[in-house]
Amino acid sequence: MPAIPDETYKNVFDAIDARQNEFVATLKEALAIPSVSGDPARRPDCVQMVMWTKKKMEELGISVQVIEAGKQKLQNGDVIDLPPILFGTLGTDEKKKTVLVYGHLDVQPANKTDGWNTEPFELVEKDGKLFGRGSTDDKGPVIAWIHAISVLKQKGVDIPVNLKFVFECMEETGSEGLEEALRNHKDDFLKNVDMTCVSDNYWLGKKKPCLTYGLRGICYYFIEVSCAKQDLHSGTYGGSIPEAMNDLVWLLSQLTDLDGTIRIPHIYDSVEPVTDDEKKIYEEIDFDHEEYRKDIRAHSLLKTTKEEILMNRWRFPSLSIHGIEGAYSQPGAKTVIPNKVIGKFSIRTVPNMTPKDVDKLVITYLNELWAQRGSPNHYNVIAYHSGMPWVTDMKHVNFRAGARAIKRVFGTDPDYTREGGSIPICLTLQELTGNNVMLLPIGACDDMAHSQNEKIDRSNFIQGTKTLAAYLLELAECT
Amino acid sequence: MPAIPDETYKNVFDAIDARQNEFVATLKEALAIPSVSGDPARRPDCVQMVMWTKKKMEELGISVQVIEAGKQKLQNGDVIDLPPILFGTLGTDEKKKTVLVYGHLDVQPANKTDGWNTEPFELVEKDGKLFGRGSTDDKGPVIAWIHAISVLKQKGVDIPVNLKFVFECMEETGSEGLEEALRNHKDDFLKNVDMTCVSDNYWLGKKKPCLTYGLRGICYYFIEVSCAKQDLHSGTYGGSIPEAMNDLVWLLSQLTDLDGTIRIPHIYDSVEPVTDDEKKIYEEIDFDHEEYRKDIRAHSLLKTTKEEILMNRWRFPSLSIHGIEGAYSQPGAKTVIPNKVIGKFSIRTVPNMTPKDVDKLVITYLNELWAQRGSPNHYNVIAYHSGMPWVTDMKHVNFRAGARAIKRVFGTDPDYTREGGSIPICLTLQELTGNNVMLLPIGACDDMAHSQNEKIDRSNFIQGTKTLAAYLLELAECT
Repeated sequence: MPAIPDETYKNVFDAIDARQNEFVATLKEALAIPSVSGDPARRPDCVQMVMWTKKKMEELGISVQVIEAGKQKLQNGDVIDLPPILFGTLGTDEKKKTVLVYGHLDVQPANKTDGWNTEPFELVEKDGKLFGRGSTDDKGPVIAWIHAISVLKQKGVDIPVNLKFVFECMEETGSEGLEEALRNHKDDFLKNVDMTCVSDNYWLGKKKPCLTYGLRGICYYFIEVSCAKQDLHSGTYGGSIPEAMNDLVWLLSQLTDLDGTIRIPHIYDSVEPVTDDEKKIYEEIDFDHEEYRKDIRAHSLLKTTKEEILMNRWRFPSLSIHGIEGAYSQPGAKTVIPNKVIGKFSIRTVPNMTPKDVDKLVITYLNELWAQRGSPNHYNVIAYHSGMPWVTDMKHVNFRAGARAIKRVFGTDPDYTREGGSIPICLTLQELTGNNVMLLPIGACDDMAHSQNEKIDRSNFIQGTKTLAAYLLELAECT
Repeated sequence: MPAIPDETYKNVFDAIDARQNEFVATLKEALAIPSVSGDPARRPDCVQMVMWTKKKMEELGISVQVIEAGKQKLQNGDVIDLPPILFGTLGTDEKKKTVLVYGHLDVQPANKTDGWNTEPFELVEKDGKLFGRGSTDDKGPVIAWIHAISVLKQKGVDIPVNLKFVFECMEETGSEGLEEALRNHKDDFLKNVDMTCVSDNYWLGKKKPCLTYGLRGICYYFIEVSCAKQDLHSGTYGGSIPEAMNDLVWLLSQLTDLDGTIRIPHIYDSVEPVTDDEKKIYEEIDFDHEEYRKDIRAHSLLKTTKEEILMNRWRFPSLSIHGIEGAYSQPGAKTVIPNKVIGKFSIRTVPNMTPKDVDKLVITYLNELWAQRGSPNHYNVIAYHSGMPWVTDMKHVNFRAGARAIKRVFGTDPDYTREGGSIPICLTLQELTGNNVMLLPIGACDDMAHSQNEKIDRSNFIQGTKTLAAYLLELAECT
């Protein structure tokens, strides 16, 4: 298919600018539905959010299947329905490539009393920022997709690709039911998907857009140590027994060096060496590590250069100790000898580390430490959960189209970034479609996803809508 | 005053046996008042409990002063009245010595759903055990005092000492208001108190009574370490900064050796050496350290002999790590880098350690460790609270009378014990009266004070009443 003329881009962008107040109003409608997937009492709101989105999609001519996602078993034993998943289809032209779009309709919990300046489920605009739970994670991006399609339709543009949509409403609580639903439709709905675009992360900074081609994996561990059948009073029993907390803090103290180096033997053996090409990527990225340090008010960073810090966050493993379950964790003082304590830590993994290998190294090391300790207490290690790291080919047409779209809207090439965290859907979609997955974020690093006063800048919401429309047009290249 | 004839003891004991069902019924009345001092909503019940007790005392001819204890400021900012304190006086014969009796009328919280087999605020008798919150801590002993006096009156016995009573209703929440009230009455109500008897602890075992002459003190510390302005996502930020948890677990791991030895230099310097006389006390005590180990289902004890374990619990310092505030402490997994963590530990102290000296040694050691660590994070140590250890003269007439009373009731000499924990009122009363304080427990080690299914054995409740009556009669020696 020939390249779309610049004029078409201009018309589309102008139309988006002209309709921006309407788009913000639609986002306001979506934010008013408190679709908190982690709160079973909000399940009807989740269903309402799914149905609201279905209606918006159908108004654009998208054919929508409502996929029942099964049941959820709550901690109290109750069983409730998972919110349904939306599978959408727009265009079935066999001559065109097919792009899958993923997004989620659920949000993190939010209460004004948590420290919000405004009602979290009411969009409030202030100084060009659209505040409200879900504004950036992930209702804003989902609605940007809907508006991008709407304007392309309005302008009578022949979208150069077929589109598929997967919108779920359980992402914030582990996407329960999604993988099974996708797997069940691997050979029909997912068949012929040539590439996937996910808008569910953030720019590295506040100004420059990026495309994301890698994520770290995770291996999460529990170390259990117990010394008695129940908690004991430290006055009455102090001096009687070897206490579990002493063993546990010692074990945890042996995991890393002060400079962050993981002390587990051979843990770095399978980490891919840094190539010269890769080094260049980090050199070119717009990132000020001193500003980053100041933003989080850290007293010091583990590395002294931009490139080293980015690599430490994205392409080297790291180990964090998260906390201890079973010990006293409240404010004030309690004179307790905790009888059973569970230390929790995780390792962020990178290619070519596998959970199987990492589990083995971690457990071997901890067993050796425990033998060295010589404590009579009971000890156990649990490999609690894991996820693979993900890195994809950023020279794929998917990324080329994304980059050109960004250049058109922002006048700059994107940075190519990875993320330190995990977005398991990327791996799942890559595996099930067998094709390229790209992360195309439209929100900025200071959007406060999951936190109080979540927002998306109005300009990013609108420019993001343009970027998504432009990305679809740029894919004319591949049809 | 001549010794009381054995016949009198027999008459008193027989009367107590004859009235035991009435005594249990009175205890049942007291337990039905949920005087939970830690729950502001239960404050009226605390007041009711105080007034119920006042009435019982007045029925015996005890002259009672109701001492207003002032106000309590709650965490939510509300200010409510503390429950009043009862000061009782029975006898003002200048030729007699004066004994002060202390007890408390409030209880720990209790809910059936916590794991009680019966309603906690309803006395239920089963297999000779009287279950209910407060049965052993401390309503049972207070009511044993009331019945002891009641029977002495009934039998027309001239009590050989004057009696003073201090019954408070805030003991379980730090005796707020008590010390000030006592201090205000140091020169009137407390004047001329020659000795004090406190029944608010427990036998070492289940069968043999004891008298308690020592308690350990406490020095409680917080170590704060912070690495950033707020919690960070371990995926996004892992590998960026030296994490506070790593520093903290390392510091905590340096506090003790596996065998419980405290690694703080000079911490043992001021511990009183064990004398040969003292060794003998431990040798004679009825205590099976292997049974003790099995009771708490510990995998191992820090020492291998009875004497060493008792000394470790009572007359040597011990250090326990209680927990960490600010880190993840819930079940399941959270991928957080805690920004500020507070490690909590305490040292049980013994004569002649003082909080001032211990604070200095602890802070010096931690500062040295921190310098050795070389972390760029922020660190701070707080000496959170402290209390002095207490040891008294167990050859005092107070103890001699207690011992003879026990011999009369149980046919055995008591064990002379210390406790590992603190009962600050002992130190306060010793200081304000300038005289001997004795702990005379009537409950057994398995009474589950503060825990679910608190109980007192019917036999101990009744034999305890006899012991208290006999103790008063034995004090004829000193008048």
